[in-house]
Amino acid sequence: MKVIIVGGVAGGASCAARLRRLDENAEILMVERGPYVSYANCGLPYHVGGAIEKESSLLVATEQTFREQFAIDCRTRCEVVGISAPEKTVQLKNHATGEVTTEHYDKLVLSPGAAPIRPPLPGIDLPGIFSVRTVPDARIIREWLDRDLADRTGMNSYTGYQTVVKAQRAVVIGGGFIGLEMVENLIHRGLEVTLIEKLNQVMPPLDPEMAHLVERYMIKHGVKLELNDGVAGFQQTADGTLEVLTSSGKKHPADIVILAIGVRPETALAKMAGVEIGQRGGIRVDEHMRTSDPDIFAVGDAVEVKDFVTGQWSLVALAGPANRQGRIAADVITGRNSRFRGTQGTSICQIFEAAIAQTGTTEKVLTQLGETDFEKIYLYPNSHAGYYPGAKYIAIKVIFKKSNGRLLGAQVLGEDGVPKRIDSFAMAIQMGCTIYDLEEAELSYAPPFGSAKDPVNFAAMVAADTLRSDMPLCHWNSVDSGFLLDVRSPAELAVESVPGAVNIPLPQLRARLNELPRDKEILVICRSGQRAYYATRILLQKGFKAQTMAGGMLSRSMLVEA
Amino acid sequence: MKVIIVGGVAGGASCAARLRRLDENAEILMVERGPYVSYANCGLPYHVGGAIEKESSLLVATEQTFREQFAIDCRTRCEVVGISAPEKTVQLKNHATGEVTTEHYDKLVLSPGAAPIRPPLPGIDLPGIFSVRTVPDARIIREWLDRDLADRTGMNSYTGYQTVVKAQRAVVIGGGFIGLEMVENLIHRGLEVTLIEKLNQVMPPLDPEMAHLVERYMIKHGVKLELNDGVAGFQQTADGTLEVLTSSGKKHPADIVILAIGVRPETALAKMAGVEIGQRGGIRVDEHMRTSDPDIFAVGDAVEVKDFVTGQWSLVALAGPANRQGRIAADVITGRNSRFRGTQGTSICQIFEAAIAQTGTTEKVLTQLGETDFEKIYLYPNSHAGYYPGAKYIAIKVIFKKSNGRLLGAQVLGEDGVPKRIDSFAMAIQMGCTIYDLEEAELSYAPPFGSAKDPVNFAAMVAADTLRSDMPLCHWNSVDSGFLLDVRSPAELAVESVPGAVNIPLPQLRARLNELPRDKEILVICRSGQRAYYATRILLQKGFKAQTMAGGMLSRSMLVEA
Repeated sequence: MKVIIVGGVAGGASCAARLRRLDENAEILMVERGPYVSYANCGLPYHVGGAIEKESSLLVATEQTFREQFAIDCRTRCEVVGISAPEKTVQLKNHATGEVTTEHYDKLVLSPGAAPIRPPLPGIDLPGIFSVRTVPDARIIREWLDRDLADRTGMNSYTGYQTVVKAQRAVVIGGGFIGLEMVENLIHRGLEVTLIEKLNQVMPPLDPEMAHLVERYMIKHGVKLELNDGVAGFQQTADGTLEVLTSSGKKHPADIVILAIGVRPETALAKMAGVEIGQRGGIRVDEHMRTSDPDIFAVGDAVEVKDFVTGQWSLVALAGPANRQGRIAADVITGRNSRFRGTQGTSICQIFEAAIAQTGTTEKVLTQLGETDFEKIYLYPNSHAGYYPGAKYIAIKVIFKKSNGRLLGAQVLGEDGVPKRIDSFAMAIQMGCTIYDLEEAELSYAPPFGSAKDPVNFAAMVAADTLRSDMPLCHWNSVDSGFLLDVRSPAELAVESVPGAVNIPLPQLRARLNELPRDKEILVICRSGQRAYYATRILLQKGFKAQTMAGGMLSRSMLVEA
Repeated sequence: MKVIIVGGVAGGASCAARLRRLDENAEILMVERGPYVSYANCGLPYHVGGAIEKESSLLVATEQTFREQFAIDCRTRCEVVGISAPEKTVQLKNHATGEVTTEHYDKLVLSPGAAPIRPPLPGIDLPGIFSVRTVPDARIIREWLDRDLADRTGMNSYTGYQTVVKAQRAVVIGGGFIGLEMVENLIHRGLEVTLIEKLNQVMPPLDPEMAHLVERYMIKHGVKLELNDGVAGFQQTADGTLEVLTSSGKKHPADIVILAIGVRPETALAKMAGVEIGQRGGIRVDEHMRTSDPDIFAVGDAVEVKDFVTGQWSLVALAGPANRQGRIAADVITGRNSRFRGTQGTSICQIFEAAIAQTGTTEKVLTQLGETDFEKIYLYPNSHAGYYPGAKYIAIKVIFKKSNGRLLGAQVLGEDGVPKRIDSFAMAIQMGCTIYDLEEAELSYAPPFGSAKDPVNFAAMVAADTLRSDMPLCHWNSVDSGFLLDVRSPAELAVESVPGAVNIPLPQLRARLNELPRDKEILVICRSGQRAYYATRILLQKGFKAQTMAGGMLSRSMLVEA
């Protein structure tokens, strides 16, 4: 059996190595258009920023590894220029020699990835505008950042000064994962950074109010944030400075521009092979990673995958699923019955001293799908026991099915303990947990690491209180009328209060019930929602109509755009 | 309805607060023998060590909180001195006034906790020997550590010197959680610490080879470790120095001794009430936390709980389960059908720069129970992508059912990323996951936080490879015969090699198969097991009998005692 694998990074490389382990006798040819296989593309922004110092650190495995350890014919700078599915052949062009050869396959695996979107805007090809996809991309960005700007204008030779003037102003276009990672790394290198994002939020996969917390970290670190503005074009001034022109008519000067608008599945090879392309523009595969041609498989960022929670086809460019898909394709090719269960979009991104993570689906997606059978809660617990030094607050949003309590999604942001929580939620979603299961989760606790009631338990308790009608909920953005009751202390109100809200501090509530209306819905507010819950319990049992304002003042502040 | 809750810390305090939320009209009396309620007993060692500076930080909620926020009659320094179950009364002694009163209850909740074991050894009552259970315990230990030793002998008044000589030598007896936390905190304060443990390992709930990794951290930080030695008694020298005498005849001088031998459920009240005591010596309760008397409930460290994995009755002194039990008792008292699902013993402990965590059951427990339907694997992956700075290796042991792959337990040690992993395993055990489910777990990954294949996935893959017979396993401590094949590089062998093992580096294996026996089981060794797995795959497919040595050289080093 001869298997040809096209693309030697995450999905392709995983497939190749797994294939060899399962079949010592298979003939395996892995071709990669670029100069490297199995490189750490997730590390590229950190190499640009300098956290990962050496380029060689990014090369996880080399051609030699594949040859020596796996007896795989591994060829770099080798591009597929033709595919004949009926004849089961591919045409390979060796970029070193220019030679084109034809190779037969029994099974073909496509792992071409997704390419950064490069819209045909005026000036898009000016020097200094970069995307971040490959090791050479990172290398030329580093070189560009290290070069002497004075040389650009011949100033050094004119003045005789030896001072090196490096790039100072960067514009990053697009506030997704790569955009934000590039922003952080350029700030780390000392540049002034402007981030332009067409939408009204960074991190499009997040719900906007959670994204606003990310935006605060951007602003805190001096990033100039331009939301709701698209890029219209680029131009260059006489001294070589780039200018980024936006739809709103603004002009942002830049010594370097990073394009991180998004990625598009590379489907040229799939089209060449005549296999089906899905409605989202990715290669359509079944749960065995098989395309519409039974001898052609596809894996990684180029394929459409089923969203594990919503069941919708989607495009997800994540390394974890790509690796799993590569393994599954290898399993299936060697006769095993492995299936890809879909992706739940678990992801995490470092935002300076914080991390933002999510898993499962969002309110945004559910709303787009017209779903109404869900509820959301917010909470802001400490990352670990508050009495142990270093505890930081974590912002958590959890979405669950109203009808049966099934967990649908979670978004977590904080400066400590985020991976611990998002992974618990991720496992829970995979196993079809309800919030009632999560109430009973037994997670690790010692003062430096957690709390006796972990934030995950706490989130589930809040959610379950809601579903059990112990705590009817209301939300800042969907309140039209009601009696606003603030149960915080006067000292807290002095800092920030809600117009029109009546203040009765929680400890006085039982004695002052006569001040409250029995005919109106009482909407109870506190800092984070906890005291409001206590108050709601009192009011409900005393015959009032009451609801807790989800997440209290902390949620309110998130709804105000950064 | 009147509910009396005895014990105002974790379980009792949780029960009281929940009870009030569920029943605004219940009369709730919470009594606590000590001076504080709802204090952070898990933080006591860190208060001794100074990480938690202020004693007041340990007081999570006060009598006042309970009175004002929850309208609970909360009394400290108030001890139950008699219970009449037939009459449904308790006799309360007010330690401030000496007064004894009788109170009637409809429901009684016992949350007395567990007391540090204080064996009747010669000299046990000498000054300077302490247990760590309450805030006053921590206070007197701090005072003892801060006092001037020279005063002890009158030396200052004799010499006229003003130099303060503080305690320098500590002996901690018992290497469980509290013992290890005390060791760390005393080292942190600059003391020389000797740890005496009767067993051949610290951290008795762990399997010994994982405990040995903990012992290495102890030794690295200068702790004098005395395993396999019990305490025989204590004596005091003329200058006031304590001496700890051991079963083996050793004598350890000490300025302070911490007793952390273990805890014993406080069952005096339960016995007074005439309710059933279980075979492990704890209060026996049903899944609703009800004792043998339907109007008496018990929660927390004093009760026996069902082990979630093995189904055995056990004693578990952990804050998380205690809190859950308190809530459940409140639910049941107010007519809800909540159940305690048992405990899986999820725990974590800081060991200087590292953390050790576990969840589920251990090889030790399964072996004691005579179970044979299980397998174990070891792995040593990076805490996050190796190419991103700061990655540390994590040691993971996973135990699973051979017959169906169900996850039974996990132990994780490392300096980074331990909470993330143990919580994934904990959720997995709760939901009855198999290792096949865990292979497909979609956990958070970005270079600073994880790997595309998370250590949890990686562990599951190793386990699944074993169960699918892709990788027959052998273990260092159960190998009797076989052909030892080491596939590491000569450079690695130069550092450490295995006597009798033949070396063929992995890249040469395919070309040198003729050097291997076809009639013997080939046991393949590498550093961590990964290359041995690759080699095993080659050998099996080429008709050899081969097994991978689980965890390679890294596992071998763990089996050698510290």
